[in-house]
Amino acid sequence: MRSFYLSCLCVLLSVLSVSAQELKSPDGNFILDFKLNNGVPVYTLQYKGKTVVNESKLGFELKGLGSLSKDFTIKGTSAKSADETWQTVWGQQKEIRDYHNELFVQLTQSGTGRTLDIRFRLFNDGLGFRYEFPIQPDLRHFTIVNEMTEFNLAKDYKAFWLPGDYDTNEFETVTSKISEISSLIAKAREPMAANSPTPNLAVQTPLMLKSDDGLYVNIHEAALVNYPAMCLNVDDQHFVLSAHLTPDKLGNRGYIQTGSTSPWRTIVVSDDARQILASTLILNLNEPCAIADPSWIKPVKYVGVWWEYFTGGGSTWQYTDYQDITIGKTDYKTLKPNGHHGANTAHVKEMIDFAAKNGFDAVLVEGWNEGWEDNTANVKEHVYSFTKAYPDFDVAELHNYASQKGVKIIMHHETTSAVTSYERQLDDAFQFMADNGYNSVKTGYVGPIQPHSEYHDGQYMVNHYLHVAQTAAKYKIMVDSHEAVRPTGLCRTWPNWLAQESARGTEFESFGGNRPDHTCVLPFTRLMGGPMDYTPGIFEGNLSVYGKSTAKLSTTLVKQLALYVTMYSPLQMAADLPENYNKFADAFQFIKDVAVDWDQSYVLEAEPGDYITIARKAKGKDEWYIGGITDENAREAVIKFDFLPAGKKYTATVYADDKDISWKVNPQKYTIKKIVVTNKTVLKQKLAPSGGVAISVKA
Amino acid sequence: MRSFYLSCLCVLLSVLSVSAQELKSPDGNFILDFKLNNGVPVYTLQYKGKTVVNESKLGFELKGLGSLSKDFTIKGTSAKSADETWQTVWGQQKEIRDYHNELFVQLTQSGTGRTLDIRFRLFNDGLGFRYEFPIQPDLRHFTIVNEMTEFNLAKDYKAFWLPGDYDTNEFETVTSKISEISSLIAKAREPMAANSPTPNLAVQTPLMLKSDDGLYVNIHEAALVNYPAMCLNVDDQHFVLSAHLTPDKLGNRGYIQTGSTSPWRTIVVSDDARQILASTLILNLNEPCAIADPSWIKPVKYVGVWWEYFTGGGSTWQYTDYQDITIGKTDYKTLKPNGHHGANTAHVKEMIDFAAKNGFDAVLVEGWNEGWEDNTANVKEHVYSFTKAYPDFDVAELHNYASQKGVKIIMHHETTSAVTSYERQLDDAFQFMADNGYNSVKTGYVGPIQPHSEYHDGQYMVNHYLHVAQTAAKYKIMVDSHEAVRPTGLCRTWPNWLAQESARGTEFESFGGNRPDHTCVLPFTRLMGGPMDYTPGIFEGNLSVYGKSTAKLSTTLVKQLALYVTMYSPLQMAADLPENYNKFADAFQFIKDVAVDWDQSYVLEAEPGDYITIARKAKGKDEWYIGGITDENAREAVIKFDFLPAGKKYTATVYADDKDISWKVNPQKYTIKKIVVTNKTVLKQKLAPSGGVAISVKA
Repeated sequence: MRSFYLSCLCVLLSVLSVSAQELKSPDGNFILDFKLNNGVPVYTLQYKGKTVVNESKLGFELKGLGSLSKDFTIKGTSAKSADETWQTVWGQQKEIRDYHNELFVQLTQSGTGRTLDIRFRLFNDGLGFRYEFPIQPDLRHFTIVNEMTEFNLAKDYKAFWLPGDYDTNEFETVTSKISEISSLIAKAREPMAANSPTPNLAVQTPLMLKSDDGLYVNIHEAALVNYPAMCLNVDDQHFVLSAHLTPDKLGNRGYIQTGSTSPWRTIVVSDDARQILASTLILNLNEPCAIADPSWIKPVKYVGVWWEYFTGGGSTWQYTDYQDITIGKTDYKTLKPNGHHGANTAHVKEMIDFAAKNGFDAVLVEGWNEGWEDNTANVKEHVYSFTKAYPDFDVAELHNYASQKGVKIIMHHETTSAVTSYERQLDDAFQFMADNGYNSVKTGYVGPIQPHSEYHDGQYMVNHYLHVAQTAAKYKIMVDSHEAVRPTGLCRTWPNWLAQESARGTEFESFGGNRPDHTCVLPFTRLMGGPMDYTPGIFEGNLSVYGKSTAKLSTTLVKQLALYVTMYSPLQMAADLPENYNKFADAFQFIKDVAVDWDQSYVLEAEPGDYITIARKAKGKDEWYIGGITDENAREAVIKFDFLPAGKKYTATVYADDKDISWKVNPQKYTIKKIVVTNKTVLKQKLAPSGGVAISVKA
Repeated sequence: MRSFYLSCLCVLLSVLSVSAQELKSPDGNFILDFKLNNGVPVYTLQYKGKTVVNESKLGFELKGLGSLSKDFTIKGTSAKSADETWQTVWGQQKEIRDYHNELFVQLTQSGTGRTLDIRFRLFNDGLGFRYEFPIQPDLRHFTIVNEMTEFNLAKDYKAFWLPGDYDTNEFETVTSKISEISSLIAKAREPMAANSPTPNLAVQTPLMLKSDDGLYVNIHEAALVNYPAMCLNVDDQHFVLSAHLTPDKLGNRGYIQTGSTSPWRTIVVSDDARQILASTLILNLNEPCAIADPSWIKPVKYVGVWWEYFTGGGSTWQYTDYQDITIGKTDYKTLKPNGHHGANTAHVKEMIDFAAKNGFDAVLVEGWNEGWEDNTANVKEHVYSFTKAYPDFDVAELHNYASQKGVKIIMHHETTSAVTSYERQLDDAFQFMADNGYNSVKTGYVGPIQPHSEYHDGQYMVNHYLHVAQTAAKYKIMVDSHEAVRPTGLCRTWPNWLAQESARGTEFESFGGNRPDHTCVLPFTRLMGGPMDYTPGIFEGNLSVYGKSTAKLSTTLVKQLALYVTMYSPLQMAADLPENYNKFADAFQFIKDVAVDWDQSYVLEAEPGDYITIARKAKGKDEWYIGGITDENAREAVIKFDFLPAGKKYTATVYADDKDISWKVNPQKYTIKKIVVTNKTVLKQKLAPSGGVAISVKA
């Protein structure tokens, strides 16, 4: 990775005998206190004089080895500071400053002699800390029964939460007081292709919180590697959250070898919601890029053979209606085609033509490979072939056709969570991709996991997703994983892991809808960990036009445009059918224009669940794109163009909701106007209920 | 595979409305009866007028779908016969005759409309039957709760049994009446690296049985593919055995898709114990060779860097005493060698020299690769590298050296059952082998399995072992799997799966000993399913000569020679150290001479647990090798040379126990004499307690 360091590391303190430690953030706004309370490690966190985290315990319960959470003495502490700036391979900004103060605490447990280290890093946007398991004489391997880490909020925050689950994160976010979670959680546990609810009251991270006195707090984790993902137990009497690690089905919550670390536990805090979205803390806590030359990694704007499977129009992933398929034995050439298979050569060529004509980088094709007819999860080991195309999908011809048009095809690897079978085919599958001109893959993990001991968010699968990204990197392949564990900033280390789904995406608009506030929440929750392949761009929101579906999109057309800016991702889809883009060609121009990589981003307005307005400067260009969205309430966005260079005039093309419309009434009505803007311009722009505004700014 | 067919397939019966069906073996000695007993499918088996299997139930209990074992009607039956002869790639004989009559029964279940087929094949050596799960409208996937198959013996047979266990088959065999099993099983469950005892009274297959009236019965299975291995529940009141499928840790006993079959359940029967050993039934029930051109598959006689790890002499698999190893991070070059690492370049060269000088094909080298220092099973995912050698093992230099000497090195892949990690590395590991001149691999599965839901003998691992053999075949690599599920004749289909351990091998002589009758049992039990890499040839049986070990071999030296004939395998090791072979060079000559592939085999004498005498003709040569062994009792073997061509004289070299010796007293004393033999010769040869006789016959 191209990075440069403005490093000033200096050891401030080496070994202290006192047992209370204080650490301040570089700007002094945060104060962390660590101490032992009768041998139990505890910490508190203050922000601008307010206590954010009250005294909270740290430590572990080990399987067969008792507690690693009490009887500690402090063996040593040290502190240091860092101020480095590193370049992103892609991102919301070209450069990120890593500016923090660090406290490192070394603990020894009386009686057992075991050691445990804790590393705290305070940034100007919040706290990260992790456990480090030192190599030591009498402990090499252990199994975690419980991580005891607490987040003692001591106040009844408003929370934007998903019910705790080991297998899915595709629920609609619930907004409620912490005290109300228990009464709402049963309803929030919607049935999914795989559900494994936490047995107790727990919610998922990233968890966004807001206090009555205007403090915004986000709890998540960074650099989740070889460790289970964390939910948060909810003590709704005392408002204490605590780590709830995803177990395997034997009940074990992590197989650990000393000489390793836990992920970072992250607490991003501000009294300005915009600073939550602007936080770089999670990326800063991840390791630098591990790919020596990442120059082959490029953000992608794409269309696909995809939304047609959700519209109710009849197109199918399946090639045939015959379902008694055995991969490797069934000869598809002998089967009768069903006549409505989406991924056929002629149709894919149409999509390649559309992509080429409109400047898209790639075409995603789902349903190209053998196995879709009998793909129920968790009932057989070998579900799909990842190297055998359906008879009507001509790999060589499409490779040639796409190459001539300068378009890539995005490979699709749905596994229905037959993970063992996928891993067995992985090298062959990637080699097949390399041989046929593919440089990116969308993976999928619908349904319960096989091996049967595992959940989507457990240590085994956490390792699997990373294994896929690492193996893909060997073949110079970019990855977009769906239904995988929620991201934790690993895209810094493995920037070929371009995006993930790991939340409720646009597909749910066809299943019954996403609430109007959904995309006003996601940047504060799911997106804190990394880019989301949300697949926006639906212009025809009334699915009854295709057939029997009664689904209706929960946004205006212009809000769909705005999502290309508000939902940051280096991988952006124009998800709708070409016919709909042709019908609204002037609005489609924004999607054609909008960048997918950025020099800088400016969060202009934000309130979780209510509204977001963001401006971004296109990478290496004098172009800016602005997106503003609102929830079910109309509002007036106030857009200050002060991010523009002084003294120059630009033309802004403003895509706006038409007046008196809403996501329910005439959602496809919009206006497009061009105005001249400078860095003094302030635009007051009305947004319809669940509406938006999208603006391109060019010289 | 080179095979020719003398096929006479003819449908004898097509659809019958009667519900009782009779099938006879080609020689008429066996009669199978199948009928529905109030809708429950049952069968009986008679041999020469005696009932071997009394009325025994068939069928399944399904998860969430109720019974598939009752309420049946017969939809149709058909019968056919086959008489084919096929050529082996390697084996105890060049050609095998598959001569059987078949009854195929199609059942329909009232109420559910579900169908289940059962295919019976009667050979002159016994019965095989399997379930077939037809493709049908209302059943595509199901999970087995229980296979109900019974073997109702109705008599208190003497049994040669191992306690039922899902993870190991390395117990010492117990010989007792069925009625005595319950009182003996607790002691029989010796602690192993992985133990998962069946919760109820159950034993393993192949199960050898003998009735008071002299009937020999062997129960096992053939062609175990995508299905769990079978133990046998023991009803010791009524002497009914029944299928006990290995579950996964969720309790499921097979994930089945219709359009597939169960393995064959096999019952080999004779009133002559020799015919049990001569049975070809299990191979005949396996599918023909799946490798188009198996000419690269060659039997192997080898020595190795192996026994020295068991002698107590100090040689270790580990390169260093430092145990805090993380594969991929630890730089072994920075670690201090322990000074007694076995697999170092100089020592391996010595072994190559020894192999070349004495005509061995290959040298096994264990402990060549990174990871041995921290290889405890089931505590971490990534235990070994299969592509990184220890610093003192020079892969390129040894490749070059071995090539010049015309010797192959056998790769070793111990996994300590970190199966996911092994599968992830599999292609790279085999490519590494191909790049460095290796054409065979010994795999190992010590300890509990990871993924944690699985046992060694469950469906998942059954598929894994086959996956390894199949992947190896792509790279033209032969496989010798240790600690894998017991074999079921799959080496016919995948002859590159040369041998397995899957029983208590010679290594246990160093752990405290194998009983003197051990190798008189194994051919009747473990070897029924396929060749065993027993690793015989220990000349120095007193391990105290090396250091602190007090272990003593449980055989005479000559019995070790005889095992090369009685323990059939296309993969035979001379396991002892070169210094011991040099010390007994004249006896070693037999090991140098003995063939590992055969035109024909002749079981001259046999009684399970007591004695075995076998003669075999070397493949493509006018050479014969004879091995005779006995248990703790001395005996006189009567060896008729009538298998020799008539009218010719041959020189037989007879390696015999010296007089008055035993495995306890002077076990290394032997005589070697040459005699002239013809096909009229009858040699009466005394065998010492746990002694043997080995004879080579040449023109």
